[in-house]
Amino acid sequence: MKSLSTTTLANGKQTEILIADNLKDLSAHLGSYGRSVLWVFDANTATLFKQLPPVNVVLESGESSKNFSSLERILSNAVDEGLARDCRIIGFGGGVVCDMAAFAASVFMRGCKLTLVPTTLLCMVDASVGGKTAIDFKGLKNMVGSFYPAEEVLISMDTLRTLPEKEYLNGLAEVIKHALLSQDEQLYKFLLVKKNEILSRDIETLQTLVTLSLAVKQWYIEQDPTETKGIRQVLNLGHTFGHALESSGHFTFGHGACVAWGTCRALEAGVNMGITDKAYAIGATKLFKSYGYDIDYRIGRGDWIEFRERLSKDKKKEKGQVLFVLMESQGKAVLRPIDMALVQHLVIAKPIF
Amino acid sequence: MKSLSTTTLANGKQTEILIADNLKDLSAHLGSYGRSVLWVFDANTATLFKQLPPVNVVLESGESSKNFSSLERILSNAVDEGLARDCRIIGFGGGVVCDMAAFAASVFMRGCKLTLVPTTLLCMVDASVGGKTAIDFKGLKNMVGSFYPAEEVLISMDTLRTLPEKEYLNGLAEVIKHALLSQDEQLYKFLLVKKNEILSRDIETLQTLVTLSLAVKQWYIEQDPTETKGIRQVLNLGHTFGHALESSGHFTFGHGACVAWGTCRALEAGVNMGITDKAYAIGATKLFKSYGYDIDYRIGRGDWIEFRERLSKDKKKEKGQVLFVLMESQGKAVLRPIDMALVQHLVIAKPIF
Repeated sequence: MKSLSTTTLANGKQTEILIADNLKDLSAHLGSYGRSVLWVFDANTATLFKQLPPVNVVLESGESSKNFSSLERILSNAVDEGLARDCRIIGFGGGVVCDMAAFAASVFMRGCKLTLVPTTLLCMVDASVGGKTAIDFKGLKNMVGSFYPAEEVLISMDTLRTLPEKEYLNGLAEVIKHALLSQDEQLYKFLLVKKNEILSRDIETLQTLVTLSLAVKQWYIEQDPTETKGIRQVLNLGHTFGHALESSGHFTFGHGACVAWGTCRALEAGVNMGITDKAYAIGATKLFKSYGYDIDYRIGRGDWIEFRERLSKDKKKEKGQVLFVLMESQGKAVLRPIDMALVQHLVIAKPIF
Repeated sequence: MKSLSTTTLANGKQTEILIADNLKDLSAHLGSYGRSVLWVFDANTATLFKQLPPVNVVLESGESSKNFSSLERILSNAVDEGLARDCRIIGFGGGVVCDMAAFAASVFMRGCKLTLVPTTLLCMVDASVGGKTAIDFKGLKNMVGSFYPAEEVLISMDTLRTLPEKEYLNGLAEVIKHALLSQDEQLYKFLLVKKNEILSRDIETLQTLVTLSLAVKQWYIEQDPTETKGIRQVLNLGHTFGHALESSGHFTFGHGACVAWGTCRALEAGVNMGITDKAYAIGATKLFKSYGYDIDYRIGRGDWIEFRERLSKDKKKEKGQVLFVLMESQGKAVLRPIDMALVQHLVIAKPIF
């Protein structure tokens, strides 16, 4: 187990990110916490253990578990086990598990200790770091939640080796998004040059990929921990389009696939509005395509009303207008409203490039 | 409307406390917020308005509304009305309404704006200030919640004129508790000298009473906003005994009456353990009695098991042991475990003084 980095977040709270040699190394670390611990798994990650720890909640796999009922299940277990405010909740799994464990930890007795063990690439580079917790509500993604950074995030690359291809690509989309938002081109170039090693999930390559990607996320969240300064919001690049697709498709599309698609829609919008450098947009779209994302996907005309409805529920609003993250060029993003006629054109029409 | 004071809390967030001349003055202030506002009332406070604001949730009166179902009702209304992160939730009522409104505001889109209008003495001097939000869970008080200070707390003394006597005494218990915890004797002496004016609710006297009481609470919470330093916890004086009585009686006892009773049990315990000055304990107990609290109440022998069970769920635990707030003398409190045999003796036996 080695310490990768420490991020300082809201209220001076710190998240330490630790890299484990393997799952055994990681389990030994967690075992040292003794008995005042509640574990949260989903049906998939529970199978990684021959015998589950005594106090545990196993959620159904998938986005549909991100709800009040799962939250109450975790809290109910914690109360039944007589856990106190100094207890620890450990989320062991992907984004759903980590979001649920973190939300529960943030409200159990107004906040207990929290360890996250992200087992998917998406969760490693995104959900587990930055303190955002949430559940879906009334069919809308992440409508209810809190800011509650984990004390520690433990990463074991070997969990990525067995990840289904679709899940792996979900995470890679966020990595590519981070590459666009980075203040330097290191990650972007790494993605261009190391495509084969990345797609074959070479362990050493993965470690560099996760490290570079996390550094970008950390750069943004340290400057704006609770998303009140308009800086951190740019990490939502691709998410306004993406979430609307994800929730209007009732969560059957993967999150990362939606973000890849949404980022390319935002690039197109920016070019249309004279904000985004066209050559940059074409290059970035090509990068997404080279990793196999269905960037050309368009919604059916009949789905537009629902798509627009979902879009209007986005959290990034100012004076009633939804704000989109648009790129000017590498590492430079701005928040702008987009005319609904243009949005409709972009999500229904054939792609421009 | 005049500004009374500003408290700086967790994360640099500030709560401004404003005193209104009357309800009309207060309504004019709130009316200026326009339309992106959701009001939370209970059945009692809703009657203070001839016509309710358009977007509102009216909870049933009483502690039984402090649950997940009320939380979901408020959030559901907010979503249905298309409210965004820059909207404001206004809690207009006593502790239950303010706790519910504040908890909902803390998790709606991970936090929206919050105004609290406490209409009971208990809520004015306690629940509305300090950022603690909570719901009861599995029969246990305030088990689930968050720290989320209101941006502003608006107080109109005239709401106290119509408060039922029992409700008023609920609040006075917290005021007397604050008098004990104060670093000076101003509030304690005010309570001794102005008893008649306080009990007859003279408006000018009330204003001084609330101001002095709030100053004590603010002194503690500013030093320890998220209750991590062991300083703020002493505001829980009387609450460990009190909550156990309140929840084992299934919330039929008033909160303040339980706190008065619990504070006197803590004073007795402290004398027993050689921590509390006996003359001080006798004086403070006499003060509570002079305001009509049933300090001599004892639980039946048959209720001990449930009482102990409730006590063991208290949030102030360290290494599995419940910590009680005990007084050394005026303004000096310490956290200590108490032997269960002594606790049993104190809550069942006849009082010592």
